[in-house]
Amino acid sequence: MTESDDIFTARGSVLIAGAIIDGSTVDIAIDETGTIAGIGEGAREAIDVDIIIDGSERLAVPGLVNTHTHAAMSLLRGYADDMLLQDWLSQKIWPLEAHLSGDDVYWGTKLACLEMIKSGTVAFNDMYFFMDRAAEAVDEMGIRATLAYGFIDLSIPEKREAEIKATESLARHIQSLDNPRIRTAVGPHSVYTVSLEGLRWCAEFAKEQGIGIHVHLAETEKEVVDCVAQTGKRPAALLDECGCLTPRTVAAHCCWLDEAECRLLAERGVSASHNPASNMKLAVNRAMPYHWLKQAGANVCLGTDGCSSNNNLDMFEEMKFAALLQKFAWNSPTLLPAGEAVTMATAAGARALGTGPGTLTVGAPADIVLVDARAVCNTPLYHADSNLVYACNGDAVMTVLCQGRVLMHERTVPGEEEILEGAAAAARSLVGRARQAS
Amino acid sequence: MTESDDIFTARGSVLIAGAIIDGSTVDIAIDETGTIAGIGEGAREAIDVDIIIDGSERLAVPGLVNTHTHAAMSLLRGYADDMLLQDWLSQKIWPLEAHLSGDDVYWGTKLACLEMIKSGTVAFNDMYFFMDRAAEAVDEMGIRATLAYGFIDLSIPEKREAEIKATESLARHIQSLDNPRIRTAVGPHSVYTVSLEGLRWCAEFAKEQGIGIHVHLAETEKEVVDCVAQTGKRPAALLDECGCLTPRTVAAHCCWLDEAECRLLAERGVSASHNPASNMKLAVNRAMPYHWLKQAGANVCLGTDGCSSNNNLDMFEEMKFAALLQKFAWNSPTLLPAGEAVTMATAAGARALGTGPGTLTVGAPADIVLVDARAVCNTPLYHADSNLVYACNGDAVMTVLCQGRVLMHERTVPGEEEILEGAAAAARSLVGRARQAS
Repeated sequence: MTESDDIFTARGSVLIAGAIIDGSTVDIAIDETGTIAGIGEGAREAIDVDIIIDGSERLAVPGLVNTHTHAAMSLLRGYADDMLLQDWLSQKIWPLEAHLSGDDVYWGTKLACLEMIKSGTVAFNDMYFFMDRAAEAVDEMGIRATLAYGFIDLSIPEKREAEIKATESLARHIQSLDNPRIRTAVGPHSVYTVSLEGLRWCAEFAKEQGIGIHVHLAETEKEVVDCVAQTGKRPAALLDECGCLTPRTVAAHCCWLDEAECRLLAERGVSASHNPASNMKLAVNRAMPYHWLKQAGANVCLGTDGCSSNNNLDMFEEMKFAALLQKFAWNSPTLLPAGEAVTMATAAGARALGTGPGTLTVGAPADIVLVDARAVCNTPLYHADSNLVYACNGDAVMTVLCQGRVLMHERTVPGEEEILEGAAAAARSLVGRARQAS
Repeated sequence: MTESDDIFTARGSVLIAGAIIDGSTVDIAIDETGTIAGIGEGAREAIDVDIIIDGSERLAVPGLVNTHTHAAMSLLRGYADDMLLQDWLSQKIWPLEAHLSGDDVYWGTKLACLEMIKSGTVAFNDMYFFMDRAAEAVDEMGIRATLAYGFIDLSIPEKREAEIKATESLARHIQSLDNPRIRTAVGPHSVYTVSLEGLRWCAEFAKEQGIGIHVHLAETEKEVVDCVAQTGKRPAALLDECGCLTPRTVAAHCCWLDEAECRLLAERGVSASHNPASNMKLAVNRAMPYHWLKQAGANVCLGTDGCSSNNNLDMFEEMKFAALLQKFAWNSPTLLPAGEAVTMATAAGARALGTGPGTLTVGAPADIVLVDARAVCNTPLYHADSNLVYACNGDAVMTVLCQGRVLMHERTVPGEEEILEGAAAAARSLVGRARQAS
């Protein structure tokens, strides 16, 4: 079978013929299970080829992994910006979110998945509400996701019970889907929104279920100052005391960590998710101390945060923001070079979510992105990593495979028009309901 | 005549039918001279329509203006990154630039113009070498440019004489072209590379010729400290003493200006070009004090700097970097809101280069960009400015007109393939020559 419209529905082994990896033109063979079976010399012989994808003039790179987002907030893209954090939340975001329905989350997550696929992301780490509907969207879109219900008890026992039930219910639901692409995690929102009892329950439940933890950590100075004033401990120490720092924990932001906290995260095997665009937009006044985390040996990955504080999900753009923010904020033009930014967005992200090595190697899941080597952003092409991080954005991505299945080809994603219409309609309806109520 | 492939060669009046401006769907009429003749009600009647462009599902915005770049450095995109400034310049950039030919500048500028057109930029302010060849490229590409020869005398009298000759020669050449899209400016590189005599000559020549001045100002702390140590004055005061601060001066970077210098720039009518991505990548350790410049009433515009320190020419991306860097660096989430970022990239840029009002208004030159309102980055569409700055990149631009002439339509720019091939070949040849010589 050759390249055709059926490429999205066809099942079987895939040969990417003659793509560019590290400056060499090589074949990539993918077996029926969606695993990379061979690369380079003799790769064609590793499989009985069912589907051929022309890789010429394409850079093959591992699929990108977005380790911190609130996918359905794509419906809030551009709804309110350029405000003080508290005004923005209390006057704009929360009043709108109060009217959020399961349908909104379904359409918002569909839109987010479409955007991620179109910019080369194959897996994401999500925290929000109505997560059963998010799972439905992810299932349909063919991407990977780790879905956490945002656990916020505000130290109110009744609320804690409700959050526990919601978390347990989501875990059961995801288990029932039996889709290897979709996992769940426990989502204690942060030390300032969850009680010690709540944090301890989350840690216990994650351990019992063998699932991950997704938490916000040290995003603002206020979070650290308040935590120390109330508990005598900095946020990372407090999370650790509650058992929340594990090798399956992803801690988002990490802007205000001190050096000892960086070492603690590394010791516990926690993945620290850098969210530079969001941190800049919300003016958190400090960039993640990447140099300390790196020195301590922590796994540092990358995330976009939600669309209302970015306002897109383009991990290529995020790599550039990461590499440039680190240089600027820590006054070092050599900090976070292009190659490390690519690793952050691929291998480190895959490690954080447990989705494989995040590299193009035999035995790895075929999560592969083909980037246009003839795009302006790749002309000239001295160093692919430099162009990917500093010159290109996600629109240079032409083809995306997740576990060997083609999700986008030559920039076409099946069903794009319906998703754009459905999401726009959901956004209109949400704003209309909020206006009516106010 | 209707929409067709001839749209690039056709001449005459143009009707953009039903584009979106400020949330309303309106017609835009452009007369034979490339001037906006009507917008909205009755616009169709303002012209005898020769060419129709379908504006449905398109946001119409003024063409973007890149007020500081070194266009031909597109050939150095990704050649070397992530190094200390002095190592990067002395080990990588200067050795390569030493082998630069006129042909290289021609192809580099063609590539840069292609990239700018593809991301919605209609005019740019350039400083480099072999500028007669840059002019040739600009002439062919249909874009506007103000071209300055980079005047660097290093206080050596013989070198100064040569720079004066080169500057005079370029001015004569541009005048001889008699192309209203192409202008020249005097390009004293900076206070640390040009003598006082050189700066004074530049100011005099600019005044005599009635042309602009393009200068780097207060990019690094070292520039300020050295200048004060050597002359007892800060850089802006020194430029002013030499007569270089005029209403036709564009000062790039302006990171380390103090409050008094901001007032001085405003008083003299200087345009300050913000270059956030370059400043972050090179870790200059301070963001332009936009709040002081704004308070003083200075014209603050936007530029990408050259491709070797960015590494692209996408003004949409640059708007986001500007809005986010200002918020982060000056610790204020309300600083440089989306609407101001759009003004920076359009009206303020047009004012800096004297290319019209930089707005979509009757009587203005028809420098118009049509952005895909159905792109993911414009879904949902609450506030166009927010989406343009925070969510979209230049790839959302579908159609570009400069003085009423169509330079790109539905993302097609005539001759793109030849430019990519020519530029890639020039880059290979340049690197080959540099290697042979070393």
